[in-house]
Amino acid sequence: MVNFTPVGPVAATEVPRYAGLGTFARLPQITQVPDYDVAIVGVPFDGGTSFRPGARFAPAAVREASRLLRPGYHVELETTPVEVAQFVDAGDIACTPYDNHKAVAQIQEQAAKLVAKGKTVIAIGGDHTIALPMIRATSAVHGPVALLHFDAHLDTWDTYFGEEITHGTMFRRAFEEGLLIEDRSMHVGIRGPVYDKDDFLRDHEFGFQIIRCTDIDKFGVQAVIDRIKERIGDLPVYLSIDIDVLDPAFAPGTGTPEIGGLYSREMLQIVRGLVGLNIVGADVVEVAPAYDHADVTSLAAATLVFEMMALLTKKQPI
Amino acid sequence: MVNFTPVGPVAATEVPRYAGLGTFARLPQITQVPDYDVAIVGVPFDGGTSFRPGARFAPAAVREASRLLRPGYHVELETTPVEVAQFVDAGDIACTPYDNHKAVAQIQEQAAKLVAKGKTVIAIGGDHTIALPMIRATSAVHGPVALLHFDAHLDTWDTYFGEEITHGTMFRRAFEEGLLIEDRSMHVGIRGPVYDKDDFLRDHEFGFQIIRCTDIDKFGVQAVIDRIKERIGDLPVYLSIDIDVLDPAFAPGTGTPEIGGLYSREMLQIVRGLVGLNIVGADVVEVAPAYDHADVTSLAAATLVFEMMALLTKKQPI
Amino acid sequence: MVNFTPVGPVAATEVPRYAGLGTFARLPQITQVPDYDVAIVGVPFDGGTSFRPGARFAPAAVREASRLLRPGYHVELETTPVEVAQFVDAGDIACTPYDNHKAVAQIQEQAAKLVAKGKTVIAIGGDHTIALPMIRATSAVHGPVALLHFDAHLDTWDTYFGEEITHGTMFRRAFEEGLLIEDRSMHVGIRGPVYDKDDFLRDHEFGFQIIRCTDIDKFGVQAVIDRIKERIGDLPVYLSIDIDVLDPAFAPGTGTPEIGGLYSREMLQIVRGLVGLNIVGADVVEVAPAYDHADVTSLAAATLVFEMMALLTKKQPI
Amino acid sequence: MVNFTPVGPVAATEVPRYAGLGTFARLPQITQVPDYDVAIVGVPFDGGTSFRPGARFAPAAVREASRLLRPGYHVELETTPVEVAQFVDAGDIACTPYDNHKAVAQIQEQAAKLVAKGKTVIAIGGDHTIALPMIRATSAVHGPVALLHFDAHLDTWDTYFGEEITHGTMFRRAFEEGLLIEDRSMHVGIRGPVYDKDDFLRDHEFGFQIIRCTDIDKFGVQAVIDRIKERIGDLPVYLSIDIDVLDPAFAPGTGTPEIGGLYSREMLQIVRGLVGLNIVGADVVEVAPAYDHADVTSLAAATLVFEMMALLTKKQPI
Amino acid sequence: MVNFTPVGPVAATEVPRYAGLGTFARLPQITQVPDYDVAIVGVPFDGGTSFRPGARFAPAAVREASRLLRPGYHVELETTPVEVAQFVDAGDIACTPYDNHKAVAQIQEQAAKLVAKGKTVIAIGGDHTIALPMIRATSAVHGPVALLHFDAHLDTWDTYFGEEITHGTMFRRAFEEGLLIEDRSMHVGIRGPVYDKDDFLRDHEFGFQIIRCTDIDKFGVQAVIDRIKERIGDLPVYLSIDIDVLDPAFAPGTGTPEIGGLYSREMLQIVRGLVGLNIVGADVVEVAPAYDHADVTSLAAATLVFEMMALLTKKQPI
Amino acid sequence: MVNFTPVGPVAATEVPRYAGLGTFARLPQITQVPDYDVAIVGVPFDGGTSFRPGARFAPAAVREASRLLRPGYHVELETTPVEVAQFVDAGDIACTPYDNHKAVAQIQEQAAKLVAKGKTVIAIGGDHTIALPMIRATSAVHGPVALLHFDAHLDTWDTYFGEEITHGTMFRRAFEEGLLIEDRSMHVGIRGPVYDKDDFLRDHEFGFQIIRCTDIDKFGVQAVIDRIKERIGDLPVYLSIDIDVLDPAFAPGTGTPEIGGLYSREMLQIVRGLVGLNIVGADVVEVAPAYDHADVTSLAAATLVFEMMALLTKKQPI
Repeated sequence: MVNFTPVGPVAATEVPRYAGLGTFARLPQITQVPDYDVAIVGVPFDGGTSFRPGARFAPAAVREASRLLRPGYHVELETTPVEVAQFVDAGDIACTPYDNHKAVAQIQEQAAKLVAKGKTVIAIGGDHTIALPMIRATSAVHGPVALLHFDAHLDTWDTYFGEEITHGTMFRRAFEEGLLIEDRSMHVGIRGPVYDKDDFLRDHEFGFQIIRCTDIDKFGVQAVIDRIKERIGDLPVYLSIDIDVLDPAFAPGTGTPEIGGLYSREMLQIVRGLVGLNIVGADVVEVAPAYDHADVTSLAAATLVFEMMALLTKKQPI
Repeated sequence: MVNFTPVGPVAATEVPRYAGLGTFARLPQITQVPDYDVAIVGVPFDGGTSFRPGARFAPAAVREASRLLRPGYHVELETTPVEVAQFVDAGDIACTPYDNHKAVAQIQEQAAKLVAKGKTVIAIGGDHTIALPMIRATSAVHGPVALLHFDAHLDTWDTYFGEEITHGTMFRRAFEEGLLIEDRSMHVGIRGPVYDKDDFLRDHEFGFQIIRCTDIDKFGVQAVIDRIKERIGDLPVYLSIDIDVLDPAFAPGTGTPEIGGLYSREMLQIVRGLVGLNIVGADVVEVAPAYDHADVTSLAAATLVFEMMALLTKKQPI
Repeated sequence: MVNFTPVGPVAATEVPRYAGLGTFARLPQITQVPDYDVAIVGVPFDGGTSFRPGARFAPAAVREASRLLRPGYHVELETTPVEVAQFVDAGDIACTPYDNHKAVAQIQEQAAKLVAKGKTVIAIGGDHTIALPMIRATSAVHGPVALLHFDAHLDTWDTYFGEEITHGTMFRRAFEEGLLIEDRSMHVGIRGPVYDKDDFLRDHEFGFQIIRCTDIDKFGVQAVIDRIKERIGDLPVYLSIDIDVLDPAFAPGTGTPEIGGLYSREMLQIVRGLVGLNIVGADVVEVAPAYDHADVTSLAAATLVFEMMALLTKKQPI
Repeated sequence: MVNFTPVGPVAATEVPRYAGLGTFARLPQITQVPDYDVAIVGVPFDGGTSFRPGARFAPAAVREASRLLRPGYHVELETTPVEVAQFVDAGDIACTPYDNHKAVAQIQEQAAKLVAKGKTVIAIGGDHTIALPMIRATSAVHGPVALLHFDAHLDTWDTYFGEEITHGTMFRRAFEEGLLIEDRSMHVGIRGPVYDKDDFLRDHEFGFQIIRCTDIDKFGVQAVIDRIKERIGDLPVYLSIDIDVLDPAFAPGTGTPEIGGLYSREMLQIVRGLVGLNIVGADVVEVAPAYDHADVTSLAAATLVFEMMALLTKKQPI
Repeated sequence: MVNFTPVGPVAATEVPRYAGLGTFARLPQITQVPDYDVAIVGVPFDGGTSFRPGARFAPAAVREASRLLRPGYHVELETTPVEVAQFVDAGDIACTPYDNHKAVAQIQEQAAKLVAKGKTVIAIGGDHTIALPMIRATSAVHGPVALLHFDAHLDTWDTYFGEEITHGTMFRRAFEEGLLIEDRSMHVGIRGPVYDKDDFLRDHEFGFQIIRCTDIDKFGVQAVIDRIKERIGDLPVYLSIDIDVLDPAFAPGTGTPEIGGLYSREMLQIVRGLVGLNIVGADVVEVAPAYDHADVTSLAAATLVFEMMALLTKKQPI
Repeated sequence: MVNFTPVGPVAATEVPRYAGLGTFARLPQITQVPDYDVAIVGVPFDGGTSFRPGARFAPAAVREASRLLRPGYHVELETTPVEVAQFVDAGDIACTPYDNHKAVAQIQEQAAKLVAKGKTVIAIGGDHTIALPMIRATSAVHGPVALLHFDAHLDTWDTYFGEEITHGTMFRRAFEEGLLIEDRSMHVGIRGPVYDKDDFLRDHEFGFQIIRCTDIDKFGVQAVIDRIKERIGDLPVYLSIDIDVLDPAFAPGTGTPEIGGLYSREMLQIVRGLVGLNIVGADVVEVAPAYDHADVTSLAAATLVFEMMALLTKKQPI
């Protein structure tokens, strides 16, 4: 933790929430404080998209939506994150839109600087591809991690059109690179058909366990939390949330929507249930603002970032 | 009750629902009948808004959406409101958009005329500020009331930018003015963080009890109904519904959306569970049509007004 | 079943899903294979609409949204429909927009050709009127059918503005014509008030049973499935899904939305629970693309068509 | 002219323009004054549409947009219509959406009442079909009329799908019925290709002259006005404006948009140039609100109705 | 001019234009440079709005749209503003949304700091009310100014609902306060009817000259420029652009749209024609993002700010 | 020309225009006729985009919008293209979204097949990158071509983020590869500032001449046509239209909009003025459907494709 009283967000009683330069939740910019505990950084890259592109605009859109947050006391988790740790907005990572390999290297390089000395980063994508360099940077500090992955899709396919680095294949790469602790990673919220039944077999071989939305129908939210905690325990965990884990009613603005997803209160319950996990890195990805309406998807993403902020200040279970 | 057979809405078999001047649910205008039991009135004021304005257009939008209602027999509550009482559309209350104090006085004055002689008014906001003059007018007739308040937010803050009369502070004003029966008021649907943990303390001192959305997750809808009924009993109650009590998936068109809200069937269940309460005034507020899509928010508001109409004709529990 | 290995959809690894002429789920056109088991056909007719028209554009919109489907292995139903049977896109049925009677005759005539020799048809409306000619064509082959009808509304009214053939009256016509097996048909998802309480009486006389959304609140999804299966047994069943059975949050793009509807996972659970029913014909109707957002309604409809494809290849219960 | 001081619109200084029941330009309802000179009436019918339906919602949408009008002094035409004559909002004509012939008869019957005793009617469609019954009613009083028709399309085709009464054929019907004065009618704003070159030949035989948009490019707006005045002179003229005469940039919300249309200032110049014509009836049709944005199309239509109001009070040239 | 080489915008070749915190045109923040010549400041206030509110979100929206600008060499004016002078983004002025008088005082106070020592400010509203405090601050330094006002409306009315400070009355206040040089101010782009013909008389008495859109039709763009230059000469001029001076096709996202406005190329021509004027202050106001589409209105506003930047670096005619 | 009577589009009198599989203008698919003269092909690639992506969805969107075309007799050019030559819809070219170099090779390879034996191709992008492989394929048959380029931007920059093949650099590549005839190419519609004034110098060195939008203001449309014809004469010409050459009012749905563009009638006049040019290849690119409204941009693109069809059947001036 920083050795000074953390600087919090701009006061809404002095500057209306719709006013002023829109850092995330109106937190200080990284250059405005001497040090930080947690950096929130945008990664505006969508070159890994297979269907609707546009997640490059998500960092800007999520920041704008985050004006609606009142980033103070979190009632359910009983914490006021911005009083406990120094959170900053680290701006965006600049990377090329034209070359996935180069972009991933650029993201990794800049993320490495942010996570140096054990600081934590919450990344706002961009498409899901950005999880690969973020995990690389994170595991360079913390060693292999358990991956806790919320998504409608597995994202452990091999290649798309011959390309190894895409938003549907990066977790296979992460596994192959030894970044993930074997048999401790999970997908939550999976649904829909797959082209090939063997996809599940291979996903299993990469050490993933799957909680489908239909499992939630059967067993309920608490069982999901229990299974996650049991599997992950106190291992270092990277939390990656593809916003399409939510049903399109709650998150229309995304690249590959799939009906039958999580509802907002379920999602919040599960995420809050993660309190106590040893989260060492996190992202919220795949918001596609051009398909959003009334900013509901961006607001959901912003709120999930705030939930992550609370989790990070409550590493012991409540 | 009026001493004549109530005049009902325009028949959809004679005039298509999309045709004709759009009074609420195609009810008669107040000038078209000799007397009325319940007046539905628009209050197009949004000068109390702290984030997205535009609720001034809600009365017009909710009326247009109400064309979709078939305001006949309510199956769950077993009543046909328009046969039991004379409902009218009283048009809109005209007030200045430029001065909250003056506007509130204008609203109160015109509302006072509508509630004279014990008639009931259902107000369509407008932002939530309008609840203050509506409660003033109501309690002038009925004495202090229990406030049953559906909202994502407490609305009992003190001032915003030095202003006492806003859409986030009017219920503190109502309490201070003695309009609310102590320890009988409730907020339902509260969620999200607050800037200051002490907000809850003060809200409690003003005699409010809170049912958070996470309480609904834990205890279920029936428990919510039970707690409401237990607390309010047969006291005169003012029912105020901020449409943002619904999750943004169900009500995107509002000024300060907050994810994790009520879903539509939960809302309907709870509202129908209120049957038997002694409702003496009501409002539905904070629809912001410029942020709506396919009129779903306006339709939700219109439907809730119809539910209120049914509740008013069923003051004894079923 | 066709006596050759079914031709499946275009491979997404070779042609990106956003590319190529958009047949439903990128299935072969009817002219591209020698024979078929199941034809998916558009019926772009909305002359029976009473409120928001525009369902004439639904076949095109649902096909575009179906690009998002990965029409392979259905996990919950354990089937890969396109490997089991030959599915084709039969294009659209051409009919006049100007005369309901003539249009219904045109639809019936062309549908008759598609269902000849026991083939099955899944129709994409169009407004709900198109169910009448589809049922006529179906029962011409299979005899009277049990109607399993998902909808917010009964659609068994007598006439609208003197017209007998509309999207709110066609099931009374179907009953009167003897197309429906008595006392075996059901409405699921009904909600909202009716103009006249006797509507239910008459609906009952036409042999319908009703499961309201409030029944689902009370008894749960499994009870709904049980009641359906008990009532229908192994009779030939025509499955008709009005997309407005979903709550407007999940399906805003429809002609007569009604709040308080089914949520997406409930809908999927119920539909999957129908496995084993002897479905002989089906439709998904009332998508109104001009009111949709981010194609969520069209995607819901496309997904339901895929669920139907899976049901058809699993006529025995799992 | 009425023999009393005309009652004008609601004062915007007393009731904000967004407040109150939305009659057209906030004029009095027909029932609120003893007599009138000009009635503005909605005709919410779109059963004649060949592409995008939805004009049934235009009367409501145009009325809402007309709140933006300041219906006072018209600077260019130097008139204050509402002081010169009694304008009223006559509500909507109720007609069936299901049968074009029946609907046209219903419209004609109700229009006949409005035009009785030489009163003038401005109709807000509805699709263009409604011009037929409006012209029938008008010429029943005034005898055959010169038709001045602004549109992207000729609307003199014979039948669509065997139907004689549609929004693309009604002017041939009007000609065949002898409602139009031969060789005095004009189409203005025509553009785009036609299926068959002979369409122009036939259109010519029905006595129409055509001013294409490319003529405006060549000769300018003043030449258009001159040609119109020369052709029509002081004959009784029915003015029919299909909003698609405007370019889609200015009027996106319409059923069959065609690029290369009139720009707003050109349209206003031409319409104002008509001052002095003996207009005996008029309509603005084909607004399709579901395709509009920010109400720009509805506002254009509302403004054109106001221009018509001014023309009617300035039947002598300025 | 600052005595150092001006710091320009972020290079688009290093950071993609969609990335990074969105200052206007990606200029440096005011705190990032030692001094500045021109400050661009947001004034998110819309409490003076009479119809559609929401301009409080314009500074954020215009900044986001300004990412599209390539703020380098201006071809027509032959200048590269950011090389000639130090432009900065001064963030937003914080003011209360609840009290027009207090807000105006707050804006004036903060603007006064920005214009101190002869620096120039370009304000991004906010509604048009904000022009009053901006002119007050400007004339406190420069003495009375000629007002060059682009708008559909006069904005010299007296009061609205008794309120003196609104977006339709502030220029009368400015005149009354002696902030405007008599007989040198102009309105350009005026159109539409007025409630009272005498409005023009009074406007004239306040020393304004009017160029209506119909004047542009008659005399052309060059005549407009000539008339402006002739009237204003080398007097200090405050340039105020209400975005509704553009036709709604070009600027749908505004509070009180009026058809028949300027087209984009006309607007650019006129503004560029102002080169050489002694502009001492400027604003672009009345963008209402909730009504915008594809950011076209925000982009128009951002582009006009860039044009102002160019004008300020070219105070001598070209 | 094909040696059989060309097969035209589906008849709108038999199949409503909104019905049936949406080939471009409802033309036959390439597989449905024995041979063709002109192929219209989609190229759904947007990996070269620098700002708003999404043009990958343009071929599907433009085809849907082309349902509105009546592809018959072109009045101004006096030709019925589909009677003169066999036009076909060749579907989409499949290429990877992940690697610009590989994609360009894939496009070139498939385009080469389509242009074999002197057939002409009209490509519907995709982003502007696709012009490079299309020109390569075209000049492989016809030798170097004059490039006639309609755009807001030069697209002759060197590299973006080190990438040589993007939508802003491909014409420099084409020049470097010797695909363009020196000193005969033109940009039309250029506007806005550039980062570096020397961009124009280099563009000139690559043999381009520029007609800016401000030139059109000064000299008029006819002068533009004259200058084009004079420069290009009877050389083989590749016609490339970036839809952003239109003003955002007319084409909001594009990736890098710039205000002050061409208006629709100007564009049509100029394009029609090209009649007689020896067009050997053409494209319409940069439609981004996610940012479109009411399909106006897609409709503009579809219409321009139809204009190209007409130009190709009128290679001699009229």
